[in-house]
Amino acid sequence: MRLRPCSLELVAKEGQVMKPAGASRFAPLPDAVLSAAGGVTFPFGFRASGVHAGLKRRRPDIGLLRSDLPAVSAAFFTRNRAAAAPVRLTRDEGALGALQAVIVNAGNANACTGAQGERDARGMRELAAGLLELPATHVAVSSTGVIGERLPMGLIESGIRLAAASMTPDGGERFACAIRTTDRSDKQCALRVPVRDGEVRIGFAAKGAGMVSPNMATTLCFVTSDAVVSQNDLRTMMTAALEQSFNRVTVDGQESTNDMVLGLANGATALALADDDLHLLGEALQVGLLGMALAVVADGEGATTTVRLKVAGAHDADEAERVARAIAGSPLVKTSIFGCDANFGRVIQAAGAALSPGGEAELLCDVAFDGVEVAHRSVPVPLDDREELHLLKALSSPDLDLAVDLHRGTASAHVYFSDLTHEYVRLNAGART
Amino acid sequence: MRLRPCSLELVAKEGQVMKPAGASRFAPLPDAVLSAAGGVTFPFGFRASGVHAGLKRRRPDIGLLRSDLPAVSAAFFTRNRAAAAPVRLTRDEGALGALQAVIVNAGNANACTGAQGERDARGMRELAAGLLELPATHVAVSSTGVIGERLPMGLIESGIRLAAASMTPDGGERFACAIRTTDRSDKQCALRVPVRDGEVRIGFAAKGAGMVSPNMATTLCFVTSDAVVSQNDLRTMMTAALEQSFNRVTVDGQESTNDMVLGLANGATALALADDDLHLLGEALQVGLLGMALAVVADGEGATTTVRLKVAGAHDADEAERVARAIAGSPLVKTSIFGCDANFGRVIQAAGAALSPGGEAELLCDVAFDGVEVAHRSVPVPLDDREELHLLKALSSPDLDLAVDLHRGTASAHVYFSDLTHEYVRLNAGART
Repeated sequence: MRLRPCSLELVAKEGQVMKPAGASRFAPLPDAVLSAAGGVTFPFGFRASGVHAGLKRRRPDIGLLRSDLPAVSAAFFTRNRAAAAPVRLTRDEGALGALQAVIVNAGNANACTGAQGERDARGMRELAAGLLELPATHVAVSSTGVIGERLPMGLIESGIRLAAASMTPDGGERFACAIRTTDRSDKQCALRVPVRDGEVRIGFAAKGAGMVSPNMATTLCFVTSDAVVSQNDLRTMMTAALEQSFNRVTVDGQESTNDMVLGLANGATALALADDDLHLLGEALQVGLLGMALAVVADGEGATTTVRLKVAGAHDADEAERVARAIAGSPLVKTSIFGCDANFGRVIQAAGAALSPGGEAELLCDVAFDGVEVAHRSVPVPLDDREELHLLKALSSPDLDLAVDLHRGTASAHVYFSDLTHEYVRLNAGART
Repeated sequence: MRLRPCSLELVAKEGQVMKPAGASRFAPLPDAVLSAAGGVTFPFGFRASGVHAGLKRRRPDIGLLRSDLPAVSAAFFTRNRAAAAPVRLTRDEGALGALQAVIVNAGNANACTGAQGERDARGMRELAAGLLELPATHVAVSSTGVIGERLPMGLIESGIRLAAASMTPDGGERFACAIRTTDRSDKQCALRVPVRDGEVRIGFAAKGAGMVSPNMATTLCFVTSDAVVSQNDLRTMMTAALEQSFNRVTVDGQESTNDMVLGLANGATALALADDDLHLLGEALQVGLLGMALAVVADGEGATTTVRLKVAGAHDADEAERVARAIAGSPLVKTSIFGCDANFGRVIQAAGAALSPGGEAELLCDVAFDGVEVAHRSVPVPLDDREELHLLKALSSPDLDLAVDLHRGTASAHVYFSDLTHEYVRLNAGART
């Protein structure tokens, strides 16, 4: 069950390799695609900035990203029914296929802020649109941070002016930094995709780090490309890629009020793409989004381990998904992984509780950590010293494979999740977010 | 929204009042019913013992309880599909309406132990039945503790012999002590119920403290009564009482492999009960079970606060239940309560995520902690100093009321849950359970 060593390296600056823990083994890059530096401004025709407006004490907190050319876009939003004002404004009143810019603030989610919050989100959008000389409906608004407090619009407005004045074609890194909340590191990467007539580029920036359990979207993530693609193709590719990336991860099972994923493609390369090119672009998009999603898990609040869980042998896809989410969400499983304990009993307990009850047969499942089977048909497997040592090493590493076979059918599902640690409790019992 | 001060006092020994944190306010005793000492051996015609067999280092770990007379019984089991061997044996091969005794061991759950585990559970049952001179099918077997390890049958067998030899009519307290796992205290109480022709008695013993989120049963709980009731009436009363007690609590959302609730009524009083008597008996049963369930929550692994959550204004009962369970299960809500933060944003986020998505209207809900409304229609309510002080006091106390009104309909649901603390992580990252 060992994975082949993976080639994805997320690069922050030219020459400086950034490997978010957990991302490397689990997100192998197609051979043809190369990683590169620059984040969301790596593709041609994008500019970005990140400035300090004063919402956070000493860190950048306003980010602005735009395409210089009109772009096609695909936007995905939280399905939380208590969606924040910027989500509702962008989702309900934005030109969702033709967005060309996004204004983001960290430090305040503008959620649970009522009519005032709607006015404030609209104010952010109109100010940014005016400064960028774009129609307001072509500008997305995104906020992240504390819930239930009014935006400090004075700070926000001067921040937006400063951000608009400082946009540069290499501002991707500053943008990625400005959208962080409790994230311990910037999350960005860029990829070069060779196509028939040359090369197209994709750039990514994302933020975590709590309230992470997306459903059709997540936490914030912004994707740019200079490829020529139709709005339909972009949406199709993004939908498929999200299903295999952000919608496969969970930190704490909590879908946020502010999740948004936005893809912009501006066609700056003017290269017509063949079907094969589009296919490779879609693959690269998926790898990049998976890299971002895994970086979010690895940097999940207090996380020390990213677990790739595969549940196989389920009766149907729903059952596989339900069992996988139950195991990934179990605080007992999560704390045992933090404690470096290959505790198959808690895995089987969570699986058994997630299956529909009734007079049916007892669950007899296999559990393996990093390829070492520790339970077979729900009974412990005796391990030799070599296996015990391998287990301990695997459980201590920043990424871990966990495989469960339910022996009930042929359906499977996988999900990536983080462990539950003292630091999670400390972070969330201390600060209001 | 203040509750009237409650009269339930759980009594461990004659003259010594035990108030499990969180139980007192939330489980008011009907005026006619009185609490008393003695636990499961308070009713006439029961004997019990608790002995040290060596499964746990220095604490009693084998409990034996029997009725001297034939009894009617009602038994409820975990719906986990990975149910432990003793659960399967008792559930599938026991005389569920005529159980007369139960043998319990702590320290080892006999779960995930395969065919050997079945033989061991059967061995426990047959040895106990032989010593008690009862048919094996009239003896329930119950185990709790670590999953995935074989029972040390040598220790168990000498423990069962010792337990059988030391049963006494006042052994309830020793029994309650012997069934504990990570519980910080014994959980038992007893009630006197006045009836037309005299008085009947009920006794309770239970254990927690993790893997607590029962479904039709729970964690272990044993109930005895000397009332004359039919098997049907006992089952009906127990079902209704469990629905309002153990099935309303959650510590960590994890339904265990070993949950069992067993009620025994032996009719030792020989008093015929009128309909009113039965009604009061049912009420007392519910209050006692709620007291036990709340004692389990208050003693939930690492718990410092018991929260009574009421979700009102839901579209239907399913929605009310789903939203209540989502809030009670949110690690963000649970940690904020540990941190004494009236964080309505996390409550609304969890509620919004639990509602079915779609184009429907935004969730506009009210949130109140201990009667102080902190959010109205999803917008923060400004609080004065007196209210802030009241909130801080309420959040620091061992029991807390949390009320959520979804303003979507008239259905409601309530659930009791505990907070998430450093101690939960320490307990569960450290010890294999």
